Amino acid sequence: MKTRIVSAIIAFWFVWATAEGLQVQSQTVRPSAPSSKLSDLEAAQNAANSKPGPRSLPARDIPVPDTVSPELASAIAWPYRLPNWNANPKSAAEWNKLVADLAAVAAAAQPAIREKLGVKLETAMMGGVKVYILTPKEIPPANRNRLLIHVHGGGYVYNPGEAGTQEGALMAAYGGFKVISVDYRMPPDYPYPAAMDDAMAVWKAALKMQRPANMAIFGTSTGGGMTLAMVLRAKQEKLPLPGAIAPGTPWSDLTETGDSYKTNEWLDNILVSYNGYLARAAQLYANGRDLKDPQLSPIYGDFHGFPPTILTSGTRDLFLSNTVRTHRKLRQAGVEAALQVFEGMSHAQYTLSPYTPESKEVFTEIARFFEAHLGE
Amino acid sequence: MKTRIVSAIIAFWFVWATAEGLQVQSQTVRPSAPSSKLSDLEAAQNAANSKPGPRSLPARDIPVPDTVSPELASAIAWPYRLPNWNANPKSAAEWNKLVADLAAVAAAAQPAIREKLGVKLETAMMGGVKVYILTPKEIPPANRNRLLIHVHGGGYVYNPGEAGTQEGALMAAYGGFKVISVDYRMPPDYPYPAAMDDAMAVWKAALKMQRPANMAIFGTSTGGGMTLAMVLRAKQEKLPLPGAIAPGTPWSDLTETGDSYKTNEWLDNILVSYNGYLARAAQLYANGRDLKDPQLSPIYGDFHGFPPTILTSGTRDLFLSNTVRTHRKLRQAGVEAALQVFEGMSHAQYTLSPYTPESKEVFTEIARFFEAHLGE
Repeated sequence: MKTRIVSAIIAFWFVWATAEGLQVQSQTVRPSAPSSKLSDLEAAQNAANSKPGPRSLPARDIPVPDTVSPELASAIAWPYRLPNWNANPKSAAEWNKLVADLAAVAAAAQPAIREKLGVKLETAMMGGVKVYILTPKEIPPANRNRLLIHVHGGGYVYNPGEAGTQEGALMAAYGGFKVISVDYRMPPDYPYPAAMDDAMAVWKAALKMQRPANMAIFGTSTGGGMTLAMVLRAKQEKLPLPGAIAPGTPWSDLTETGDSYKTNEWLDNILVSYNGYLARAAQLYANGRDLKDPQLSPIYGDFHGFPPTILTSGTRDLFLSNTVRTHRKLRQAGVEAALQVFEGMSHAQYTLSPYTPESKEVFTEIARFFEAHLGE
Repeated sequence: MKTRIVSAIIAFWFVWATAEGLQVQSQTVRPSAPSSKLSDLEAAQNAANSKPGPRSLPARDIPVPDTVSPELASAIAWPYRLPNWNANPKSAAEWNKLVADLAAVAAAAQPAIREKLGVKLETAMMGGVKVYILTPKEIPPANRNRLLIHVHGGGYVYNPGEAGTQEGALMAAYGGFKVISVDYRMPPDYPYPAAMDDAMAVWKAALKMQRPANMAIFGTSTGGGMTLAMVLRAKQEKLPLPGAIAPGTPWSDLTETGDSYKTNEWLDNILVSYNGYLARAAQLYANGRDLKDPQLSPIYGDFHGFPPTILTSGTRDLFLSNTVRTHRKLRQAGVEAALQVFEGMSHAQYTLSPYTPESKEVFTEIARFFEAHLGE
């Protein structure tokens, strides 16, 4: 074993020493940071970045940060999620099996999570769509006439049924709100616009239950993108808008557009890369439609007249750019929009790791924002 | 040439194929993204990130994003700044010469920038400290009884004299405020606490000119860190606090603590790495003092009672973590704190590239925040 490592190092050195010019080597092989002296790395990096153009980055090991809670540090240290991130089903049947298998695991975890959080789950139908009603043990008086609509994440393919309720339970518990979580239809069986039709049917039904100014819509990832698309569609259909929204790290651009799709690729341990299941799910959902249609990629829509919005992301989030681009565009449209970015967090880690202090902080901040902007 | 590249690839493949276990190879050599097929990269990354621990990243070329203005895209494409980022002077005399040389270039650019922005510069003394007074062509009526104090950036060593006034001129022009920019003393000749003593002397003098509620303090990088340290010290000395502050991508932690010191290393084309001039400047400024003293690293201070604060950063910023950690800590202390993060921006790029639409947006947003929180 040791001999092979030494041989490998020698062979590598030979390749390195005989190839011509640093630029050429950087296209073939590069020493990783830990095995190089800092001054060598510095020289190589300066040479590789001496002209205007793309940024050349060396191979690196990035330590788990010590600036987060131990619970979040452990989530950050996690390996990539397999098969979630790079799933590549070859048929509708394979998609359905994969989704069902993953959903079974996630759903099985929910009763214990709700028990720990003190949240009750009921099922119901609203506007012909299946929903879950999540009620915390205690709802503060100011929130008794308020109602939150939740749209779950999962790239438009994952998290059907109870598997999609975790974030709703967290918001109900940490925020003290009644939450209705939409179990919208998904591809391969139901591509766009089924998911949006279902979400809008629930919104229309909710308008008969509560004043729109007392309601908020929220969701993470795909749920964040759908939250934005719901407001766009409500504007278009001249429906009343919610009093506030909280798109968390929204999939606001279904194309691989935005700097962090590249800068945080391989660093984000949840999504890892656009070129895994995400790219496939986008096509599956769009079903031939232009991915830049604002109903699919709401970043291309008109944000004028949007209600107050709070956005959440993390420094390692593959969707950091989706989030900050959405924030900037909302601000440019004159919308009251708040941004919170959490240290070291990958995509949606605050919903996936329910008990970190940072997760509680995320939902508490969203709750404060809702309290400040919703009617009573 | 081509033969050598092919030999290199074959030799590499041999090493790859004969070594035992992907984990071992990832410690020695790795294929770079451009020359590997995506599926190979995916397999190598999955293997290298299959256990809890540090994140293993491949060598990569990151394209210039197309989600920013052409002007900002050109700034993002820039090579690393040499000798700024990795300067390593061996003596006080060498430091002074380097700083003077860089400052001469920056100062020479200022008259044309002010001319273009319509800003007038005057020099004055306040509390025994040299300051620059920057006045825009027009000050809106609501801002006539408002005054901004500016503390420049440059790692506590760069930008003495007129070289430090660029950000002040941008704020004066884009925001429509009168700005006083502090030309504080710096190491090697004047280490801590000279810079802070000067900044506080100007604050005390300013308190005789204007009501504190009508004044804000702002600055970027070191200027952002000093802005936070000034409020901490004003609290301690029981001086009146400003009505609002705007620490831009603050150097709130002089130690290499925070995730983006690593994740955005080599990606940020302004600071590039902590292990360049920054680490040396921190020692020079601290002059033996603990770098975690809250007057040097204000993130370790108590933010309770801070005035409303707006923070600015970019997705490629080496200080993204300094910024978001400061934001979270302010929010935890109950402070009204806004965060704005700009797509693709490296550290302080909005002050260094004065004419990008994004730079104008940064300062316009800060101005709106000041208008909302300062007395008239």
